[in-house]
Amino acid sequence: MSLLEITGSLNMIGYAIATIAPALGVAWIFASVINGTARQPEARGAMMSTAFIGFAVVEALAIIAIALAFVL
Amino acid sequence: MSLLEITGSLNMIGYAIATIAPALGVAWIFASVINGTARQPEARGAMMSTAFIGFAVVEALAIIAIALAFVL
Amino acid sequence: MSLLEITGSLNMIGYAIATIAPALGVAWIFASVINGTARQPEARGAMMSTAFIGFAVVEALAIIAIALAFVL
Repeated sequence: MSLLEITGSLNMIGYAIATIAPALGVAWIFASVINGTARQPEARGAMMSTAFIGFAVVEALAIIAIALAFVL
Repeated sequence: MSLLEITGSLNMIGYAIATIAPALGVAWIFASVINGTARQPEARGAMMSTAFIGFAVVEALAIIAIALAFVL
Repeated sequence: MSLLEITGSLNMIGYAIATIAPALGVAWIFASVINGTARQPEARGAMMSTAFIGFAVVEALAIIAIALAFVL
């Protein structure tokens, strides 16, 4: 006798895996800004503008995964 | 004879995987603030404001996973 | 008796795995620009133009995965 009552969607696991690298990547970018601020505080503006470009293109991969989780 | 009584939802596993990277990422960001404060304590205010921006966008990926676990 | 109510698509998991390396790679590129800006702020323009070339070819791998998730 086997009683398997497993529900849920594979898309949720897909979104979960898709958050791993963007979360680490965005954290990496902002950690670099923080380390750069500690080294040279007057360059923080230039570093933040670079960080926001990188944040946008990296976080987009996770945002796309949200959309794909509903579409696929 | 095999007795399998496995229940549960794949969405729970999905949320669990989705916490891995945001937790490490937010820890990374604040650890960078701590290291930067140890190197240059007068820049702590600028580093903390950077850290809160990074914290918000990284932690959001895990919060979205909570909502998706109910929807999917 | 087995009650399996698992929905979703394996293509979603495929896209999720396909985001891991591009997200980390693009984050690496922009983190390098930020570190370079902290070391030598006047070279930021040259570093950004290099970063955009690297960003385009690395991010393309994840964008292709979006298309393949619908086609396959």
